[in-house]
Amino acid sequence: MSSVLERIDEHIKTLSQFTSTPGNGTTRLTYSKEDLQARNYLKKVMEDYGLSVTEDGAGNIFGKLAGEVNGPSVLIGSHFDSVPNGGDYDGPAGVIAGLEVAKLFKDNGISPKYPLEVVALVEEEGSRFGGGLMGSRSITGKLTDKAFRELKDSEGVSTVEAMKHIGLNPNFLTKRDEKTMKAYLELHIEQGPILENEKISIGIVEGIVGLSQLEITIRGEAGHAGTTPMNGRADALVVAAQIIAKLPTFTESYGEGTVVTVGKLSVYPNGANVIPGSVTFTIDLRSTEEAKLKSLVDETQTFIRQMQNEKITISIAEQLYMSPTILDDEMKQQLEKSCQKHEFSYQSIFSGAGHDAMVFAEQTKAAMIFIPSKDGLSHCPEESSDHHDIEKAVYVLFEATKQLTEVKQHEQLY
Amino acid sequence: MSSVLERIDEHIKTLSQFTSTPGNGTTRLTYSKEDLQARNYLKKVMEDYGLSVTEDGAGNIFGKLAGEVNGPSVLIGSHFDSVPNGGDYDGPAGVIAGLEVAKLFKDNGISPKYPLEVVALVEEEGSRFGGGLMGSRSITGKLTDKAFRELKDSEGVSTVEAMKHIGLNPNFLTKRDEKTMKAYLELHIEQGPILENEKISIGIVEGIVGLSQLEITIRGEAGHAGTTPMNGRADALVVAAQIIAKLPTFTESYGEGTVVTVGKLSVYPNGANVIPGSVTFTIDLRSTEEAKLKSLVDETQTFIRQMQNEKITISIAEQLYMSPTILDDEMKQQLEKSCQKHEFSYQSIFSGAGHDAMVFAEQTKAAMIFIPSKDGLSHCPEESSDHHDIEKAVYVLFEATKQLTEVKQHEQLY
Repeated sequence: MSSVLERIDEHIKTLSQFTSTPGNGTTRLTYSKEDLQARNYLKKVMEDYGLSVTEDGAGNIFGKLAGEVNGPSVLIGSHFDSVPNGGDYDGPAGVIAGLEVAKLFKDNGISPKYPLEVVALVEEEGSRFGGGLMGSRSITGKLTDKAFRELKDSEGVSTVEAMKHIGLNPNFLTKRDEKTMKAYLELHIEQGPILENEKISIGIVEGIVGLSQLEITIRGEAGHAGTTPMNGRADALVVAAQIIAKLPTFTESYGEGTVVTVGKLSVYPNGANVIPGSVTFTIDLRSTEEAKLKSLVDETQTFIRQMQNEKITISIAEQLYMSPTILDDEMKQQLEKSCQKHEFSYQSIFSGAGHDAMVFAEQTKAAMIFIPSKDGLSHCPEESSDHHDIEKAVYVLFEATKQLTEVKQHEQLY
Repeated sequence: MSSVLERIDEHIKTLSQFTSTPGNGTTRLTYSKEDLQARNYLKKVMEDYGLSVTEDGAGNIFGKLAGEVNGPSVLIGSHFDSVPNGGDYDGPAGVIAGLEVAKLFKDNGISPKYPLEVVALVEEEGSRFGGGLMGSRSITGKLTDKAFRELKDSEGVSTVEAMKHIGLNPNFLTKRDEKTMKAYLELHIEQGPILENEKISIGIVEGIVGLSQLEITIRGEAGHAGTTPMNGRADALVVAAQIIAKLPTFTESYGEGTVVTVGKLSVYPNGANVIPGSVTFTIDLRSTEEAKLKSLVDETQTFIRQMQNEKITISIAEQLYMSPTILDDEMKQQLEKSCQKHEFSYQSIFSGAGHDAMVFAEQTKAAMIFIPSKDGLSHCPEESSDHHDIEKAVYVLFEATKQLTEVKQHEQLY
């Protein structure tokens, strides 16, 4: 019989093969061929582990271990999509931890009172359809079915078309009645240097930064680079550059914990000798404090609107807004006790990254744990975490999950 | 029997169908499926017009009308590639004019002393392999065979691979002995508003701006947009934005006739929540005066190098440098006389755009004429020219070409 560690090795190794950029990190966009490969693998593992597998109308996967009562479920998992040229751990580590917790229930013959559901969520990164957290926002109804169906990727392919392309059924229900959820638990890699620097294995997440994602489109006038005088131009890229060069200075007055990033930008028509006619880019703004976040978003939008003139028009779309989230105190205490029981090192930590847990936290009790990221890196091919840390996290989550599902006393003795 | 104007209509209409972006302008990248379609059409027309068709090792097409002596040829033509989402006239108008000049020789039973070659050149725009003027630079040996073979498109496909993909033979010779060229003549659309504003049909090109094309790559450090503090970042896009926002101010001291454009830019990895690890962009610099051009290129490179620091590295590659070109005086006079003979309105004009004629001008006598561009637009789907102006240009070029090929006196009477 394989060990938890061996199974973690096997899961990570297998899932890392499902990338559209082999040799250059994991690129697994939602509803892509690689999504389908990972999806089929995860469903197969769930079945092998004795879980009942279902998919919802957004393609989220659920592996359910029935409880003694047909009550609300304890959800445990994370997402399985990636950024372009990302790593093997951001997302999958948490899905795998969920699978192994369920496997420990089975292997130890434990029958929970309330059901346990391992969840594998789609499009947390927003790399294909923008905005991010699409899977959890669909489940909680924060993203309506209508809005979900209107989302398109950069090539104009809709969510519905893309789902059908890999054989998923977009007509299944996605939004869950919140009464069907008892709690949500998630393991994620830290994506920062703190735990590694402190040589701590488990971070118990205190809260998650609030974030706003804007999409900006600047429209000027394309033209020939040689025949249009400088003073007759409406160059969309020059205006975009003026904005992007200025944005970082806006964070200075807010201190640590407030950041702004332009990560994605497209120029149209993108020819070396053509004046850019339009430019579209994203702005990602985050803060641990809601007042700071709102103020930064306002300042940014006001500045951008001032760049308009008779030849330059600018549109601003807020694709996502999430308030800073404080996670459930009782669950944090349960996780602390689990660490203490196993004598694993742990500390409290704030998350600079958004996670599906913050979406679930609006409707149910939610908590998260972090494991160290090698060199603090994530969202790159070098992203890595020690599989021993994932194993420790599985045992911590197993303890907490037993309590959350209210396992009967005699079964806890196994 | 069809008229010159009817044939021009037919050629433009047919070639405009060979686009990868139907309904959104002409996108005909070199060695693409659309290149092959246009290529097959042009070769078929050349054959129908009684020309001997050959292709060289870069895929340039030649349709030869033999002369009475096996001496150097008078070349007439232009390019048939396009920018992304460009128009139907930039390039093809000149190739079509060449075809119709040859057709007039045939239809009038004129036998030139020196051969006439209609040329259809590849990759003038540089939209696939960068730098531009690839076809003419290969013919003149300015781009060596080795350098040609090392060029790759943005997806890593080499010129040689791309040629083979559409059945071309990259092993044919490309560089011509300059002794095989007697003169080069090109019709092109103006790509600016001057002729239209002045209601002039024919511009006789005085000279062509000098140009430098730089490719800049900025390397910083990718990372998660939420977990990397602002002061710990090496954001390649912020540095690129600082440069792009500044460049236009450098042209102010040089006055009219000097321009700078960043038209093409790629962000890597280009995820909304990933700090850009690297950015690559082009800089297109032009001036009518060489001293100004060199000074602007120096100033630009010095500024960019100063943006480097311990976390940001920048590489600068000059992909192309062309001095300003003054075209052949005798040919300009011949073109003027042709206009006078036909009573077509004409004026002298400077070209703000680079053209294959400036490459040929280094090895042979070269001249160009412009026709008006509707609303001064080019490199966009709205690009258009009056087919009557193309027809006039054909007659002007026919007169000049007869003289350049030294047609015998009795034949000129036809």
